[in-house]
Amino acid sequence: MNKSAIAQLKAKAAAAKTASRKLAYLSTDIKNKALLNIAADLLARKDEILAANKKDYKAGESSGMSTALLDRLMLDTKRLEGIAADTRAVAALPDPVGEISEMRTMPNGLQIGKKRVPIGVIGAIYESRPNVTVDIAGLCLKSGNAVILRGGKETINSNTAIVKVVQSACERAGMPEGCVQFVDDTDRALVDEMLKMNNLIDLIIPRGGAGLIKSVAEKATMPVVTGGIGVCHTYVDKSANVDMAVNIVYNAKVQRPTVCNALDSVLVHKEKAEEFLPKMAAALNKANVELHCDKKSMAILKKDKTLKLVPAVEEDWGKEFLALIAAIKVVDTFDEALEHIAKYGSGHSEAIITNGYPSAQRFLNEVDAACVYVNASTRFTDGGQFGLGAEVGISTQKMHARGPMGLKELTSYKWIIYGNGHVRP
Amino acid sequence: MNKSAIAQLKAKAAAAKTASRKLAYLSTDIKNKALLNIAADLLARKDEILAANKKDYKAGESSGMSTALLDRLMLDTKRLEGIAADTRAVAALPDPVGEISEMRTMPNGLQIGKKRVPIGVIGAIYESRPNVTVDIAGLCLKSGNAVILRGGKETINSNTAIVKVVQSACERAGMPEGCVQFVDDTDRALVDEMLKMNNLIDLIIPRGGAGLIKSVAEKATMPVVTGGIGVCHTYVDKSANVDMAVNIVYNAKVQRPTVCNALDSVLVHKEKAEEFLPKMAAALNKANVELHCDKKSMAILKKDKTLKLVPAVEEDWGKEFLALIAAIKVVDTFDEALEHIAKYGSGHSEAIITNGYPSAQRFLNEVDAACVYVNASTRFTDGGQFGLGAEVGISTQKMHARGPMGLKELTSYKWIIYGNGHVRP
Repeated sequence: MNKSAIAQLKAKAAAAKTASRKLAYLSTDIKNKALLNIAADLLARKDEILAANKKDYKAGESSGMSTALLDRLMLDTKRLEGIAADTRAVAALPDPVGEISEMRTMPNGLQIGKKRVPIGVIGAIYESRPNVTVDIAGLCLKSGNAVILRGGKETINSNTAIVKVVQSACERAGMPEGCVQFVDDTDRALVDEMLKMNNLIDLIIPRGGAGLIKSVAEKATMPVVTGGIGVCHTYVDKSANVDMAVNIVYNAKVQRPTVCNALDSVLVHKEKAEEFLPKMAAALNKANVELHCDKKSMAILKKDKTLKLVPAVEEDWGKEFLALIAAIKVVDTFDEALEHIAKYGSGHSEAIITNGYPSAQRFLNEVDAACVYVNASTRFTDGGQFGLGAEVGISTQKMHARGPMGLKELTSYKWIIYGNGHVRP
Repeated sequence: MNKSAIAQLKAKAAAAKTASRKLAYLSTDIKNKALLNIAADLLARKDEILAANKKDYKAGESSGMSTALLDRLMLDTKRLEGIAADTRAVAALPDPVGEISEMRTMPNGLQIGKKRVPIGVIGAIYESRPNVTVDIAGLCLKSGNAVILRGGKETINSNTAIVKVVQSACERAGMPEGCVQFVDDTDRALVDEMLKMNNLIDLIIPRGGAGLIKSVAEKATMPVVTGGIGVCHTYVDKSANVDMAVNIVYNAKVQRPTVCNALDSVLVHKEKAEEFLPKMAAALNKANVELHCDKKSMAILKKDKTLKLVPAVEEDWGKEFLALIAAIKVVDTFDEALEHIAKYGSGHSEAIITNGYPSAQRFLNEVDAACVYVNASTRFTDGGQFGLGAEVGISTQKMHARGPMGLKELTSYKWIIYGNGHVRP
């Protein structure tokens, strides 16, 4: 690895650290001003951004990039307008920093409370979509954090142009110098160096495919927010309303099958299977969903020759399909459903469809996942749907934050103590 | 490494994981019953515990263990009574599990909120004091977590006896089988194996010296609560009340010099140095404190030949002395004090002594530490002093929890969602 590249990266991280100290107590007004400047400048300077993006697009074309990937990296006026609107939306969210909580006066007269503060310096490592550059920078700045952006080489020209706009917009608003850093050297070895800098970078956010996230989580010496893999179950209880169950399963599987909160497995109580499964299969069949059935569900469904049925194999349980495929299993008891979810779930989103009050309560209590639903689609697991405004990602960890992570989850707290000459006896 | 030892450890961790699922929604009554049983049984079965402890003591003596270490591992009736009283105190604390917060009804009618839940399985790796066995087990059980205890080989007989008492007390209360596991094989290589089991153990708590904590933090594949190193500054501002400043500095340095929240460095504004330093030095001198002085403070103090003065070297700044030593520095400005703390502090506890309102506010805002004080001794950084009841440790991390960690900090949350057939449009 090139030593001067490492030195340069370290200098950028150190500059971000210095900026983060001022950012920590910057007024909300200045942070919002910066975000509104960014939104305005993205549109005012769209020609230079789109010209840079065209370079990336052409390079992608000539290197044989797939149409899907080319579409992901492509920017046009409409997309820039969308990014600007998202940035204005983050400006409109409440600022979590500075909130005081749990303030109490102790018997000795000491006043002790918690004050919400930014985390410090956040490193973002992401793949081809250039909108992530603005998105992550906006969320970090609003929550008072400095940010080091490291995008993929496929969008290096777009990112360079966008970061220039972001940096000058920040400067004009009076943000501390160096609060947005950009790693313009796309050598992968430099990412490994970045992941070693735990004295300068406080948190790493990887955004991209499972491979990127896994590699970052393994190598990082600082905390990492891992956007979770979602192996999501919907359990149809014996007392379920069948129409509601079909409707929810259909929505959870079909409305957007490529995302982490989409349904992967359906579990159904044996007393409801005969009634529910044919209706469910007919509905899913219209959307071309392939059903991977255990023996009991296969026995019920195989009479209908129009269905796309595949015998389920062990690997189907606990698999995130990200496609129009669902695994189907008949369970003998409620407890068997709980056991199955505990064994195969990824702790992301799990749902029960039931009209039984005790079943609903037991499911909410006993299922160990970031989001546990009664009579609703797992597709609601989302910062926007939960009322958090913007979302950094969905955590399946238990430490720090769980489920959709908004601005507040990019903060920490410190204890502040007001004394009057107090000493410990 | 012995394969059957690894298999045995894995079986224990798996049993703890299974127990943790039931513990997660166990009633507070049963958990408190278990703690009260433990407290009672420790005293009822003191003969077998003290006999086992005597074995450890004799082995320690014949292996040439120091008097201080022997004293740490020694148990007697009085100490057992203390441990029992601490356990009853944990039983009396409120149960954090099950608390519902941020419950709101979304515009679409979905009811969404957060429910506090245990973390799962906690692994404790600790050194010679046998009371830690009861202490950690009590805190974990009260917060609904299963626990795997791995104590040092110096106390293997004591720990074995104590764990037997704890396990039978838990069983009698109706706690889930396997909720308290004990690693009776003290081979160090087994700790490394334990630190790999991130699918069975959710959090590791190391308790012991800096070497143990550092080694665990480096090797663990799951989150670790690192009990912080405390490099604590007290800054005496130009508007400080000198008597108050002397009193607080004396308390922070002398009251208990061997702990992490004790004072390490004193910074004083140049306009106050001539008045403050001689008074401070005279007070500290009575307690035999050695002063490591920068040039300016040395120039002021060296006239008094009775003081123990040493010229400060670079290594003195940022050092946790854990002894009757303090580093002393005169700063030209308030900003220089802030810079010094940012550079050398460990993010544990920092204090300002001032009568100036703007100085107090700037210090609270700008100093980045777990606990920031105005006009009080840093010695107050403690779960008990902060009103948290028991304390697992003091975190200098920013993720999850910062500062003193009580029962609540041994928990996470899940989102619970009540729907009525809701699907995402």
